[in-house]
Amino acid sequence: MASRWPTLRLLAQCKTQSQLRGQTPLKPSWTTRQALSSFPSSAKPGQASSPLSGYLGLVALGLLVTAPLAYKMAVEEPLSLDSLSLAERDQQTKREQGVNDASPMRLRMEKFVKEQQKEIVWALEQVDGNSFRVDEWQRKEGGGGITCVLQDGNVFEKAGVGVSVVYGTLPKPAILKMRANHKKLGEDIENIPDSLEFFAAGLSLVVHPKNPMAPTVHLNYRYFETANPDGTSGAWWFGGGSDLTPAYLFDEDAIQFHKSLKEVCDAHDKDYYSRFKKWCDTYFYNKHRGESRGVGGIFFDDLDETVRDKENTFAFIQDALKSFVPTYVPIINKRKDMPYTEQEKEWQQIRRGKYVEFNLVHDRGTAFGLNTPGARVESILMSLPLTASWKYMYEPEPKSREARLVEVLKTPKEWV
Amino acid sequence: MASRWPTLRLLAQCKTQSQLRGQTPLKPSWTTRQALSSFPSSAKPGQASSPLSGYLGLVALGLLVTAPLAYKMAVEEPLSLDSLSLAERDQQTKREQGVNDASPMRLRMEKFVKEQQKEIVWALEQVDGNSFRVDEWQRKEGGGGITCVLQDGNVFEKAGVGVSVVYGTLPKPAILKMRANHKKLGEDIENIPDSLEFFAAGLSLVVHPKNPMAPTVHLNYRYFETANPDGTSGAWWFGGGSDLTPAYLFDEDAIQFHKSLKEVCDAHDKDYYSRFKKWCDTYFYNKHRGESRGVGGIFFDDLDETVRDKENTFAFIQDALKSFVPTYVPIINKRKDMPYTEQEKEWQQIRRGKYVEFNLVHDRGTAFGLNTPGARVESILMSLPLTASWKYMYEPEPKSREARLVEVLKTPKEWV
Repeated sequence: MASRWPTLRLLAQCKTQSQLRGQTPLKPSWTTRQALSSFPSSAKPGQASSPLSGYLGLVALGLLVTAPLAYKMAVEEPLSLDSLSLAERDQQTKREQGVNDASPMRLRMEKFVKEQQKEIVWALEQVDGNSFRVDEWQRKEGGGGITCVLQDGNVFEKAGVGVSVVYGTLPKPAILKMRANHKKLGEDIENIPDSLEFFAAGLSLVVHPKNPMAPTVHLNYRYFETANPDGTSGAWWFGGGSDLTPAYLFDEDAIQFHKSLKEVCDAHDKDYYSRFKKWCDTYFYNKHRGESRGVGGIFFDDLDETVRDKENTFAFIQDALKSFVPTYVPIINKRKDMPYTEQEKEWQQIRRGKYVEFNLVHDRGTAFGLNTPGARVESILMSLPLTASWKYMYEPEPKSREARLVEVLKTPKEWV
Repeated sequence: MASRWPTLRLLAQCKTQSQLRGQTPLKPSWTTRQALSSFPSSAKPGQASSPLSGYLGLVALGLLVTAPLAYKMAVEEPLSLDSLSLAERDQQTKREQGVNDASPMRLRMEKFVKEQQKEIVWALEQVDGNSFRVDEWQRKEGGGGITCVLQDGNVFEKAGVGVSVVYGTLPKPAILKMRANHKKLGEDIENIPDSLEFFAAGLSLVVHPKNPMAPTVHLNYRYFETANPDGTSGAWWFGGGSDLTPAYLFDEDAIQFHKSLKEVCDAHDKDYYSRFKKWCDTYFYNKHRGESRGVGGIFFDDLDETVRDKENTFAFIQDALKSFVPTYVPIINKRKDMPYTEQEKEWQQIRRGKYVEFNLVHDRGTAFGLNTPGARVESILMSLPLTASWKYMYEPEPKSREARLVEVLKTPKEWV
């Protein structure tokens, strides 16, 4: 279904200050103001207080930076291959050969998430009737992302769909930490390099509908890879997931959402769904409130060769991401025009407050991003709702629909 | 001025489910539901990821727990003094001798912040015309606090004034960390005890007015003390401060606020104001936004015998806390009825969002509190506004009043 949407539609609808010039990426005029920020080319995760997995969170949150060093690479004389960085090699490959099934996974993932971003943006625009604002951002050291946001629409209070692609350098402390989960990183413990080039690309989205009967949804899929000093691929892994956060619980929506994810998982591995469903319940847990953020979905990280080969894992990631639109759009269409009261809107705002709490207090990616100097804060915080509310000691009436939601959040259910 | 307010007025106006019985503290019926939570009697700060100064933040945020083990202590036979905990000793002292200028600082500080809480609540009620909800909370291990909140009033969107008093035990790793700032803690490095009893008491308040022309204000004063194994006082220090956060900047308000703080500081030490003003600008800095939370005020911590003696420091703390009402009430009275537009209200909501970001992402006390199992979350988060908003890439018009505020927040000013 998703594949029938015209992938170039996004380019045609960039009503922002972008100029469209053939292969040149969109460059809204604010780019010069905002995007040439001081985001460091090597993010030095070893110096940050967050766990290293925050790196992936960065991708998740559209913080990381695209590769387009292309303009830097319009060199007069060809460089010797050995002196090229990973980013420069990839730019050369794209220029000379394009991207196909034989290309490095980096280029295939980048191409895939950018295509998917266009398709998802197009599908959500069809639901809302308004267009997304499209901001492509770069940083002077190279890299960047594309952040698409639709705000205060007919159906969506706020919908953000972000892609980021980054090339950087892992310092030795970061490599040592990552080894805990990825043995391939510096296999020879005697000869761990002082630094390693890495690549990360991902798509991240959060949709907050206006109607309190329609659930918020979050999704993120990402790929991470290191380059060996000789230029070959080193360690690699995929991560991601998708979860649903209703203010009013319609069991049928939760069931449909989980069923769709289970189908995708089952087609690739019969163990995936139950493992990733539990992982999701654990990760999206608002500890200080003693409740889950929502009714869950799937979440996973570190899917590497110890789980399954790269090709099959990418196939799973593709199916999972492609299933988003056909899963969520029917749910939003069913809920977007339902009648609701002022009190029900108020309850939604209270739940939005809890969403903000999770994202700002517990989400590792957000914390890491916000503590990274020069990060594009507006891309990280596109996940926050347009409005939220905190009422002191607010508790739903016993046996109300609101109380039932809280009950389910306190004891995650099996939906399929 | 403050001393003329009737300190017993709060007791007379407890419209909550409290029962008032002579000396018995207020006990709203929800206490039995909420307050007997599993907040651990020794908070084990050494196991938390936040810096140990979070302890003080706990007090700041009304998280910590009151001492009232009184009912447990209606013992048939007198206990030998040696076997009593610090909390039990203090209860005995209060029962037998009351609290006066010769009492331990613990009891004097507790008495003082509880009196001040009543006076501040009373003063804010006079401004608003509505009453605060008063919740006294305890935990089954002993200790607790009093949280007073006025929500959706005539003048105040949300005003919270909390007191907490806690007795607990510091494990050895916490003692070792605290030694960095307080040499008196385990002076004999060879004989640092495995644990030390401690006491902490503080008052914390946050007031968010409805009118966008009226500034938000925050205040917190706290006292911390450890007991030596022989029962005598060990290390002690005071901390605190107060800061102003306008959505629309009236220079005269910022000047008046700082002038009042400077007067209080100058009366005790000519160096205090400039040191504490800088400290405030540094602490209340929203790093990821590159701007201060507001126009500042004063902030300090670790005021111990290396700075000035206990008696003089307590006198300073008293004057600083007592100056709150006569400083803030004239400001709120001047602003509360000013006309404003829908756009100005919107800007206030955007600024509220930044306030939420600071409190949830950067404030050490909030982070520590929310990560402490069994904490009274509603008392910690009473600091959040009733409503807040996040607009993607929202930027004020150049040269507007909104833009000038941001400019001042980016480069803190000297106001006096």
